[in-house]
Amino acid sequence: MPPPAALGPNARLIGQRHAREQLATPALLLDLDVFERNVALMANRCRRAHKGLRPHAKTHKSARIARAQLAAGAVGICVATVHEATVMVAAGVSGVLITSPIVGTAKLAMLERLLARRGDVTVVVDNIEAVAGLERSARRARRSLDVLIDIDVGMKRTGVPDVRGAVLLARRLATSSVLQYAGVQCYSGSVQHIVQAAARVRAYSRQLAHLERVLEALARRGHGARIVSGGGTGTFEIDRRGALFTECQPGSYVFMDAQYNAVEPVAHAAWPFKTSLYVQTMVSSNHYPRAVTLDAGLKSFAMDGPAPLPVRGAPRSARYQYFGDEFGRLVLPRGARPLPLGHKIELITPHCDPTVNLHDFYHCVRGDRLVDIWPVDARGNL
Amino acid sequence: MPPPAALGPNARLIGQRHAREQLATPALLLDLDVFERNVALMANRCRRAHKGLRPHAKTHKSARIARAQLAAGAVGICVATVHEATVMVAAGVSGVLITSPIVGTAKLAMLERLLARRGDVTVVVDNIEAVAGLERSARRARRSLDVLIDIDVGMKRTGVPDVRGAVLLARRLATSSVLQYAGVQCYSGSVQHIVQAAARVRAYSRQLAHLERVLEALARRGHGARIVSGGGTGTFEIDRRGALFTECQPGSYVFMDAQYNAVEPVAHAAWPFKTSLYVQTMVSSNHYPRAVTLDAGLKSFAMDGPAPLPVRGAPRSARYQYFGDEFGRLVLPRGARPLPLGHKIELITPHCDPTVNLHDFYHCVRGDRLVDIWPVDARGNL
Repeated sequence: MPPPAALGPNARLIGQRHAREQLATPALLLDLDVFERNVALMANRCRRAHKGLRPHAKTHKSARIARAQLAAGAVGICVATVHEATVMVAAGVSGVLITSPIVGTAKLAMLERLLARRGDVTVVVDNIEAVAGLERSARRARRSLDVLIDIDVGMKRTGVPDVRGAVLLARRLATSSVLQYAGVQCYSGSVQHIVQAAARVRAYSRQLAHLERVLEALARRGHGARIVSGGGTGTFEIDRRGALFTECQPGSYVFMDAQYNAVEPVAHAAWPFKTSLYVQTMVSSNHYPRAVTLDAGLKSFAMDGPAPLPVRGAPRSARYQYFGDEFGRLVLPRGARPLPLGHKIELITPHCDPTVNLHDFYHCVRGDRLVDIWPVDARGNL
Repeated sequence: MPPPAALGPNARLIGQRHAREQLATPALLLDLDVFERNVALMANRCRRAHKGLRPHAKTHKSARIARAQLAAGAVGICVATVHEATVMVAAGVSGVLITSPIVGTAKLAMLERLLARRGDVTVVVDNIEAVAGLERSARRARRSLDVLIDIDVGMKRTGVPDVRGAVLLARRLATSSVLQYAGVQCYSGSVQHIVQAAARVRAYSRQLAHLERVLEALARRGHGARIVSGGGTGTFEIDRRGALFTECQPGSYVFMDAQYNAVEPVAHAAWPFKTSLYVQTMVSSNHYPRAVTLDAGLKSFAMDGPAPLPVRGAPRSARYQYFGDEFGRLVLPRGARPLPLGHKIELITPHCDPTVNLHDFYHCVRGDRLVDIWPVDARGNL
C-alpha cells in the first residue's frame, strides 16, 4: 500500500461525507457499488456457462481491481505488457497471462526477472523465431513457462495468420524442454465495437470458424489446446455460450464507457453492466452564455473514442468538446442557466482503457462519500 | 533525485555505450545535444531582444528541464496547473507562473499550501468573482501574491474578453491588501499552428491589436502593466521583436514535434530549433510484407496532432498508423526489405506536450550512449 501522501491532494478527504463535491479536479471517479455489481455479474455469467474468466487488466491497470476480480472467482488476469505483469506479480496477483507477444532482448530480460521472482505468468507467441528467446528467459530463470499460441482471426495486428503456422509453432513448442504448450489465444479487437449486435455476430462467426479450423488441425496432430482464451466485452455472450473458448478475457465490463454504451449488447435488450467510471471536472472560466471552459482536456480523456458524455451536474443536451491539453469546452443548450465558476460536472469516459492510463488515481465513491483512493499502479509504458 | 529503481527497467543501461539499441520500449528519447542547443538558442534570442524568457513547462513537465532553462537565463517558468507548480516548487524552481485561472476550493487549498511552503509563484485571474478566493489563499498562507490579468484575444477559452472587464479587474486587484497586480498575460493558442507564416502574422496582428487596446486602457487608468507575458513557439519571433510583451512563454521549442515541423517559421527559412524528442519502438509482429506491428500505440503518442513520423530505423516513406492502445502499424513502401522482430524504429512525436504526459521517463541520449534518465515528474492530473 502506498503511503497517503502518494495518493494525491484528495487523500485528505478519504472517509468524509460530501467529499465528492470537494475533490481537486480533474479526478477519475469509480462508483464502487456499480463496479462491484459489474464484477460479480460477469463472474456469475462465466461460472454458469462453466467457462473460466480471465479479465483483462489493460482496462484498469490496477492490482487492487485485479484482486477483486480474482476474489469473485476469476481464474487469473490478462495483462497487455510485461510492465503490467511486473506490477501485478509484485502485488501478489496470480494466473497472469501476458496477451502480447514478447520479443526483443529488453522485454525478454524483464520476463526473465519476472520468472526469477516466481511470477505465475503465461505468455503468448505468434512467431517461430520468437521461441528461442522465450526459452532463454525461462532457462536463465530456472523455470518452466506455459505458452499459448496467439491466433490472428482478422485484425492483422498480432497472431499467427494461418493454420499451418499454428501447427508448426505447436510442434516447435512440443520439442522445448522449458516451454509448455498450453493452448491458444484469440482476440478479435476489430469486432468488439460493431454497433449492431447482429452484424457483430455475423462478422465474429466468420472469424471463429477460422479459430475452429486451427483448433481442429492442432488436435488432429496431437496438439489439442487445453486453454483457449479470448474474447471481449462486446462478444462475451457469444464467447461464454460457444464451445470454442475455455476462458473469457473481457476487460471494459468493470467500467463501461461511452464507446460500449453506444454498442448493442448481444442477447440483451440493454447492457447488464452499468457505467461505474467518470471523470469529474469543474468550470474554470465562464465568460460566454453558450459555452463554459472545464478543467479536463486531452490529458484527462483519451481521444480514440467518441466524445466524453456529460452527465451529473450538466444541463440536458450539453456537449463536451476537447479544448487543448488542460481544458474542455462544455457547449450549453440555448437558454441554459449560467454555470458558476467551480461548478462540478461528471462525464462518462470516451474509451475507458486509455483514459484510465492518463490518471494516477481512482477516487472510489459511494454516493457522496470518498471511500478510498486506489492507484492506477500499472499505468504507463515502462 | 529518485532512486535508480524508480527510473524504470532501462536504469541499468545508464552510462553504457550502445545502450540506445538495448532500451526496453516504448521509450521516450531526448537527444541532449539538440535539446541543449534549443535551450541556449531561445535564451539568446530573447536576451538579444531584451525580453524576459519564461518558458512553458507544460511541454516538458520536468523540474530538471526547468532548471536547465533557468540556468540558461530564463526569468522563471510557466506551468499550466497548480499540480505542476507544486512539483516545480518542491524541486526548488523559482519564478513559477501558473498560466491557468485557479478557482474552486480544492485548487485554492493547493495554492494555499504552495504559498505556505514559500513557493515563489505568480497566478493569473480572468474573473472578478475569483479574486476573493485568491485573497483567502494568500491571507491564510500569510503571503502576498502577484497576480496577472489573463486577457483573451480570441480563443474564448480563458481570459477576460473585453477592455472593460480587464480594467474592472485591475481596479479590484488594486484594492486588495494581499494581492499585487503585476500586469497581464495573453496566450493565443489558436494561431500558433497556422501553417503559413504570413497568415499567422495577419491573424496574430489582429489579436495583438486588442491586447494593445487593453494595455492602453489599463495604463490610462493608472494600472500600467509591469509584466506582459505570453506567446508561444509559433509566434516567438513576433513576440520578442514587438513592443507589447515584456517576456515570452514558448514551450515546444525545446523538443519540436511533427506538428511544429509542419509549420512555417516566422522570419526564418527553416526552424532554428531542431527535433530533440523521439519515441523508440520496435517490431512486435511481422507476418505481412506491407506492414509490421510496432509496440507503441496511443498509450505512447498523443492523438491530437498529425501522425508520428518514422525516422531512424524506418524505410523511407514508411508511415505510422495508430493500432490500439499498445500497438502501431508501420505501413511499408512496396519492395521494402522485411523488418525483423525486435527491430528498433524511432519516431518524431506528433504533438510533444500531451505525448510527454503519457511517459514517465526521458531517456537522455548522446549518440548511442544513454547518459541519464529524467523523470517526467509533473505529468498527470493531480
